[in-house]
Amino acid sequence: MKSICAVEGVTAAGIREGKYGLALIRASGTAAGVFTSNLVRAAPVELMMERLQKGALEAIVVNSGCANAYTGERGYRDAKEMAAIAASSLGLEPESVGVASTGVIGRYLDLPRIREQCSRVSPLLARNSDAEDAAARAIMTTDTFPKHALFRTESFTVGGIAKGSGMIAPNMGTMLAFIYTDADVEAGMLQEILRQASRRSFNRVVVDGDTSTNDAAFCTATGAAGRVDRDDLARGIEAVCRDLAIQIARDGEGATKLLKVTVRGAPDEEAAAAVARTIVASPLVKTAVYGEDPNWGRVVAAAGRAGVEFDPYAVSLRIGDVTLVCRGEIVAELEAARAAMHGDTVVFDLDLAVGDGQATAWGCDLTERYVEINGKYTT
Amino acid sequence: MKSICAVEGVTAAGIREGKYGLALIRASGTAAGVFTSNLVRAAPVELMMERLQKGALEAIVVNSGCANAYTGERGYRDAKEMAAIAASSLGLEPESVGVASTGVIGRYLDLPRIREQCSRVSPLLARNSDAEDAAARAIMTTDTFPKHALFRTESFTVGGIAKGSGMIAPNMGTMLAFIYTDADVEAGMLQEILRQASRRSFNRVVVDGDTSTNDAAFCTATGAAGRVDRDDLARGIEAVCRDLAIQIARDGEGATKLLKVTVRGAPDEEAAAAVARTIVASPLVKTAVYGEDPNWGRVVAAAGRAGVEFDPYAVSLRIGDVTLVCRGEIVAELEAARAAMHGDTVVFDLDLAVGDGQATAWGCDLTERYVEINGKYTT
Repeated sequence: MKSICAVEGVTAAGIREGKYGLALIRASGTAAGVFTSNLVRAAPVELMMERLQKGALEAIVVNSGCANAYTGERGYRDAKEMAAIAASSLGLEPESVGVASTGVIGRYLDLPRIREQCSRVSPLLARNSDAEDAAARAIMTTDTFPKHALFRTESFTVGGIAKGSGMIAPNMGTMLAFIYTDADVEAGMLQEILRQASRRSFNRVVVDGDTSTNDAAFCTATGAAGRVDRDDLARGIEAVCRDLAIQIARDGEGATKLLKVTVRGAPDEEAAAAVARTIVASPLVKTAVYGEDPNWGRVVAAAGRAGVEFDPYAVSLRIGDVTLVCRGEIVAELEAARAAMHGDTVVFDLDLAVGDGQATAWGCDLTERYVEINGKYTT
Repeated sequence: MKSICAVEGVTAAGIREGKYGLALIRASGTAAGVFTSNLVRAAPVELMMERLQKGALEAIVVNSGCANAYTGERGYRDAKEMAAIAASSLGLEPESVGVASTGVIGRYLDLPRIREQCSRVSPLLARNSDAEDAAARAIMTTDTFPKHALFRTESFTVGGIAKGSGMIAPNMGTMLAFIYTDADVEAGMLQEILRQASRRSFNRVVVDGDTSTNDAAFCTATGAAGRVDRDDLARGIEAVCRDLAIQIARDGEGATKLLKVTVRGAPDEEAAAAVARTIVASPLVKTAVYGEDPNWGRVVAAAGRAGVEFDPYAVSLRIGDVTLVCRGEIVAELEAARAAMHGDTVVFDLDLAVGDGQATAWGCDLTERYVEINGKYTT
């Protein structure tokens, strides 16, 4: 098993019919969630922000194809009803079931379809690699591959699945992640750990800079493995979130390359992250990565508009192992740098020479295919 | 005459040889300038920020092909030398001449070429439509057309030329604008007027969200028309800046459509501008405009992440004359909205229903051609 079903206490199932998928994940435990910062929040996000106050979940139901976003009060009632449908098929209390949706904005849920899919999916719940893969595939929209991650120590396990490729895909979209651990941890601490892990992983992935109305990451701790060291657990959950985040970046719409940008020497970690995110989000950097063009001026110029103070003539920049700028001196071995941009992963390392802050952000190149996916195929 | 040469006291000339162009504009008067907010500022920007402290200029020399950016102390000396070369060819004091550059970052100016081009351009200085057009063409990089604007009242005239298509084009880039008026106005007031006009025009154009190291707008007032009303002059300068800004948006790299977004009902003007800019910068909105897809969910979702508080279920949205959302109700006449997206200009009007703030931003669609220009043709 390569993700959630490796965690004791977790069973999963999923089906996908055309663009409509449904996944069920059963796992009793303390629960935490982090949500989109967009002011326009989808109904399932509103519902889960309330429901996770209790800090516990028994199961989660997820549909793809309809985001249930910008659907007002009816959307909120529909999200509740979707949880109730899943609860009834699993013999649970409605309030103990979580919901998430991804798909077209501004359309109502097809509840009869969800009821019908739920009745067929719930008997399939199982703890094996086919089951976790069926769940991971059921929640895909424009994703080109299912996303699994696993972290294991001798004392506990963390596993997660996720979907996402554009921050808001054509109409589909959204980053969703479902993380499970067998560690025994109370809900407040789990929330803290998940928030910190998300900040360092999902919040450092930029595909196109747009922020979905439905973005959410959930973590449930079943407790089967007993108490574990807090820092160990935080490392495990962060590792799984980072692994999933990198897969989301690599699966960016139309992407041919993963872009990894590490910024060091910043005033602090958040400043480093701001600069790294600005670089991975720059359309000019993204097109240069696509063209394997070691156009370092675009990287320094993007850093310069990130809102962080530094001396442009003190910075150092590497592409892979090739130094282009060394403390403000242009070294620019352009041919070697171009060679370092071949392959499916491109790594920039920028040292601002100010302080000790360091952070990494991930993104992808910008290609004609992104424009085609989002522009040519109209709704 | 359609721009700067319509202003009494202004003569111009320019040549372009391959990607290397040089323009001279002669005009004595009070002078003001606004510059890039990027921390990484080109040498000519550094020099002009100092030189405009005096509030007067006799002439400006502009080269295209080399940005003289990220060139350190040598770059700064080169910018000074470039002004001195132009001054000598015009019989002026070196300190009275302004400089601007646009082109590749991280390369030194070719001063012998600039000296040679200056000696050939200075005898061509004239006040006619060929001369202003030669100057406008000399400063183009990836621009596909020269940019002229003119505003006339009975008492005074404002004319301007500009260049710019990507905020930083492949390596070329930069927005540069040169505005002239025959009004008699002291430098402090001219600076105030130009800053306000830029804030409402150039600062509301987003092609790709990148901010050049060389962006600059200059205004010189020759005084030939005598004193005029301050508000009239502000309106005139703003009109010329807006006209040039819209031409820059329309000439966005790879663009097929101009996108005009008006946000009203915001808490204040700056909040309205923040939302309008976020919408015109959204890759998903830009690709939807390209595909003529009335995907209004992307517009509302982009507004939701602009950092301005509003109730998503109170907003109204129109595309052209077609209402898609009316106070939170989805009206969505999709076919009519799609028809409103044909043609070379697409207009969105979003009412946030919060306050009285209103602002307009301009941008363009995102096409495969943008990716080609910036990715495929490597340096």
